[in-house]
Amino acid sequence: MRKYGVIGLGQVGATVAYTLVQRGTVDELVLIDQNEALATAQKLDLDDASARLSSTTKIILNDYAALADAEVLIIATGNIKAIDMASSKGRFGEYDSNQAIVRDIAPKIVASGFKGILIDIMNPCDVMTDYLQRMTGFPRERVFGTGTFLDTARMQKYVGQALKTNGKNVAGYVYGEHGNSQFVAWSTVSVNGQPISAYPDLDLNQLEEDARQGAFAVMAGKHYTNFAIATCGVRLAEAVSADAQLACPVSAFDPEFGTYVGMPAVVGKNGIESLIHLELTEKERAALQRSANFIKSKVDELPQPEPID
Amino acid sequence: MRKYGVIGLGQVGATVAYTLVQRGTVDELVLIDQNEALATAQKLDLDDASARLSSTTKIILNDYAALADAEVLIIATGNIKAIDMASSKGRFGEYDSNQAIVRDIAPKIVASGFKGILIDIMNPCDVMTDYLQRMTGFPRERVFGTGTFLDTARMQKYVGQALKTNGKNVAGYVYGEHGNSQFVAWSTVSVNGQPISAYPDLDLNQLEEDARQGAFAVMAGKHYTNFAIATCGVRLAEAVSADAQLACPVSAFDPEFGTYVGMPAVVGKNGIESLIHLELTEKERAALQRSANFIKSKVDELPQPEPID
Amino acid sequence: MRKYGVIGLGQVGATVAYTLVQRGTVDELVLIDQNEALATAQKLDLDDASARLSSTTKIILNDYAALADAEVLIIATGNIKAIDMASSKGRFGEYDSNQAIVRDIAPKIVASGFKGILIDIMNPCDVMTDYLQRMTGFPRERVFGTGTFLDTARMQKYVGQALKTNGKNVAGYVYGEHGNSQFVAWSTVSVNGQPISAYPDLDLNQLEEDARQGAFAVMAGKHYTNFAIATCGVRLAEAVSADAQLACPVSAFDPEFGTYVGMPAVVGKNGIESLIHLELTEKERAALQRSANFIKSKVDELPQPEPID
Amino acid sequence: MRKYGVIGLGQVGATVAYTLVQRGTVDELVLIDQNEALATAQKLDLDDASARLSSTTKIILNDYAALADAEVLIIATGNIKAIDMASSKGRFGEYDSNQAIVRDIAPKIVASGFKGILIDIMNPCDVMTDYLQRMTGFPRERVFGTGTFLDTARMQKYVGQALKTNGKNVAGYVYGEHGNSQFVAWSTVSVNGQPISAYPDLDLNQLEEDARQGAFAVMAGKHYTNFAIATCGVRLAEAVSADAQLACPVSAFDPEFGTYVGMPAVVGKNGIESLIHLELTEKERAALQRSANFIKSKVDELPQPEPID
Repeated sequence: MRKYGVIGLGQVGATVAYTLVQRGTVDELVLIDQNEALATAQKLDLDDASARLSSTTKIILNDYAALADAEVLIIATGNIKAIDMASSKGRFGEYDSNQAIVRDIAPKIVASGFKGILIDIMNPCDVMTDYLQRMTGFPRERVFGTGTFLDTARMQKYVGQALKTNGKNVAGYVYGEHGNSQFVAWSTVSVNGQPISAYPDLDLNQLEEDARQGAFAVMAGKHYTNFAIATCGVRLAEAVSADAQLACPVSAFDPEFGTYVGMPAVVGKNGIESLIHLELTEKERAALQRSANFIKSKVDELPQPEPID
Repeated sequence: MRKYGVIGLGQVGATVAYTLVQRGTVDELVLIDQNEALATAQKLDLDDASARLSSTTKIILNDYAALADAEVLIIATGNIKAIDMASSKGRFGEYDSNQAIVRDIAPKIVASGFKGILIDIMNPCDVMTDYLQRMTGFPRERVFGTGTFLDTARMQKYVGQALKTNGKNVAGYVYGEHGNSQFVAWSTVSVNGQPISAYPDLDLNQLEEDARQGAFAVMAGKHYTNFAIATCGVRLAEAVSADAQLACPVSAFDPEFGTYVGMPAVVGKNGIESLIHLELTEKERAALQRSANFIKSKVDELPQPEPID
Repeated sequence: MRKYGVIGLGQVGATVAYTLVQRGTVDELVLIDQNEALATAQKLDLDDASARLSSTTKIILNDYAALADAEVLIIATGNIKAIDMASSKGRFGEYDSNQAIVRDIAPKIVASGFKGILIDIMNPCDVMTDYLQRMTGFPRERVFGTGTFLDTARMQKYVGQALKTNGKNVAGYVYGEHGNSQFVAWSTVSVNGQPISAYPDLDLNQLEEDARQGAFAVMAGKHYTNFAIATCGVRLAEAVSADAQLACPVSAFDPEFGTYVGMPAVVGKNGIESLIHLELTEKERAALQRSANFIKSKVDELPQPEPID
Repeated sequence: MRKYGVIGLGQVGATVAYTLVQRGTVDELVLIDQNEALATAQKLDLDDASARLSSTTKIILNDYAALADAEVLIIATGNIKAIDMASSKGRFGEYDSNQAIVRDIAPKIVASGFKGILIDIMNPCDVMTDYLQRMTGFPRERVFGTGTFLDTARMQKYVGQALKTNGKNVAGYVYGEHGNSQFVAWSTVSVNGQPISAYPDLDLNQLEEDARQGAFAVMAGKHYTNFAIATCGVRLAEAVSADAQLACPVSAFDPEFGTYVGMPAVVGKNGIESLIHLELTEKERAALQRSANFIKSKVDELPQPEPID
């Protein structure tokens, strides 16, 4: 039996749930949202969808205790209206509200006896992933964030479009914050097996900016993003269930930086199985350090957990 | 190559598109919405999702001409805010806005050279399906609506819950309007092969009301429904592509009533391959006539197409 | 994590394994066959297939201990060459070899600490399912056979073909032995919601014979059957994992007959959740009794387990 | 509507068909085999499987004319008993029988009016792909072979196992003949984004030999391979349908060599959209030339098509 939980049933969390139901990924799905009416509505809609699918998914509502034997718990809470795409705040518009949510849900998750892997989608993603780990006290490898998994897909897409090929033919990673300080580590990027430097006509700065602004391009038209990020969350969760040992760019804890930051890591049943340390250029290295410093500073200024005697 | 189109990219149309992308159902998908920014946003979000899936779906934006070789066109336009769940208007809140949309899009669909099957999700579903057929002049079998396909799933779910069994074990149909005048034809309903009369303790009136109010229960919490209705639309479209000859309760044109109304029909590559006329009770028969009369009256009062000399 | 086991890696067991890998149903799959070279070959071929799929399935070879935490164990051993389609023996050609296999594997399964659901595909299916239950001593609901699940699909297909409709529109069941004494309980059969008696031109005897001979029609050309029976086994296993509470015709233990025999039953996480007792005609009732008597006599004449003091 | 054809319904072709049915990839499937009884048996078994799936696939038997509107035609004929794994002949055991098959089927395919993409699985794969193209006279880009698509997956798997990571994290290609003269172009191989040279402890010669002998390891236990090669064929066909523009190592015509040989190429709706010319080492370059020369010599010695005046 595969069993996941999702906390936060706005557009992202609900789409994660729908994707799991459509794919028949899980047998049981625990859905949690403090808005009882919303949670009930999502369950009803998902149950009705399930009735027209060949798979069957049992949905459990607002019961933390049901997380005790869940393999994966996806955190998708948020207040999309707080994201200010016009200002430089970007995803930090949700900083205030989501830090409070972390303090609210972390002890409940711990109390549930949850022993699985915690995947954070909440924004600002790296900061909240780190904060979730601190507030739950879970082993660092058992907590990670979607980080630059989606930004990397966007980079692949834009590079693919520029070269009139499928983005799936593009390898390489976006590193750093799932936010403004992210960057494409071009030294890691190749297309159809050829290093990106083999395509001198590409405007790498523009492509990097396109990837960085990808979410805001979506939000400009629909005021939130859900399909791609939900797909990302589900693929990572499936990699955990299958112990797939897949190399994915996610927000993982790197002891060198003392915080979570986007970088390639191996995802398996223990969450982050190992970090992948590619040889970056000096400039990329510095950019990663800067991005990590920024993330850490934002976590450090939050109320910290009580020390345990 | 499988190619579908979707007109209307609000919650329902976008979720139809996402479902098609997730399932890898189509190779090309034409998305149309007069809100250019919204259409662009949905395409971007879907493209990003596609980047994390093993399938590839090409999305074409706001190009009616691209419908010329599409197999299926799903109409999901609407103005959800117009649906007044508190009043008796229900889905007729969209009557005014959607009739105008039909007059707007019908000639564009005709001009595109579209030769496939038109599946309507727009509300009020039966009325708008009939109106779409009249305004496009397409053969009646090539136009149908989701009708009571979802209401039937809800009835199956509620009966299943009452009997602690899977709704998939419940056979039978909701007939009539996808709206207030719908009814469960209990004479057609069986559970695990046993007629519903074998379960005398069931409160059939309550179960019928639960099915009828299913959409509003969802809307009470999320202000729209999308997952189940999108799943329904996709399953019907897949039945067309596969020429599945599947018996499904949909909104089909019945010459006896001179309009579209929810009843079981066989769905295949020609759209509605045939109607299934089950022996209903006299009471059910009368309820169906009443529901059809109501639908027809609402279509008849709309501006009709110019007669062709 | 979903984990299944398969014992017997001939055409059927290997195709069950392939289907599970293709569908991404399980995260871990324990494959067991006494032919080590065959087992290794199937694992290699499946691993290579998995490399071209987006899902990842870990395959464990010939390790009974790995069954301890498996949810489902499918038994697909057999010696297809022993099935004599030309003689009246039919599936009983495997009676001698498979009874020995049951005595070999039953104690190993018990010793593994397997606590899941045992689904038997081995032929003669009902006899071997009963014998497996007796020799493992597992609770009767935790052991069942594919029985007439496939025969019923064949009946639906042939009726559908005769009426030029999809077999999925045909409801009803084949009862009794997965073998010569099976029969279609026509009183349970309906098409598009109409009882089969509404189609007086159908040659029911011929359709019943077609369903009964379905396997042999396949064997006449390829000397075994694998695709359909593997699909059946997988669907039943998935119903167990999802606790789907699905009504399926399978070989279940009926206390009234004191043995396993094909009839509709509800399949869920406990295996057989309940039997579905439809009102059969007197003739059908007698045919079921005869079929069950035959099955029971064939199990009773096998060496029985030692009584436990 | 998606429509494919498969010629040759032995283990490979039948498993291709089953995979298409399981995945719901196609709406219509044309199956052709000169062994009428075998073809009928495969259809019956697939129809029975389809009856237990939510998708519906229409299977058309032994009708070349039905290929006229098929998108993809997969050739999987062969005589597996002719493959002599003990001798140095290897896949050339089928050279004699398959060249005759090519001369038999090529004019029938041409006469059918087939306008789609021809994917050859027949062995020796590169030779027969070239011969098929010559005998059909189809444009070279519209004909290609599975070539080293599977060998590359095997290389990825073995490298992954050696480094305890998922083979999906391994990039790079096996080049050359789908046969003894193939080789791993190690200069193209990377693991988790790091060049293979970063792992000096790997025994590359052994890993290359493992990949080369992968098929024979499977055949040693089951006397044929089917699951992985069928999965490969289906994935390539799906890439054609979706116009995926995916970089895949396949047997493509390279004008430089005047024949088909395994190398990375972009697969889309036109078949081979372009060749990907990576910078190989001098040694790799020479090995590819040798492999191509060998393939070409084997095609050249076959009876050639009549010149068209």
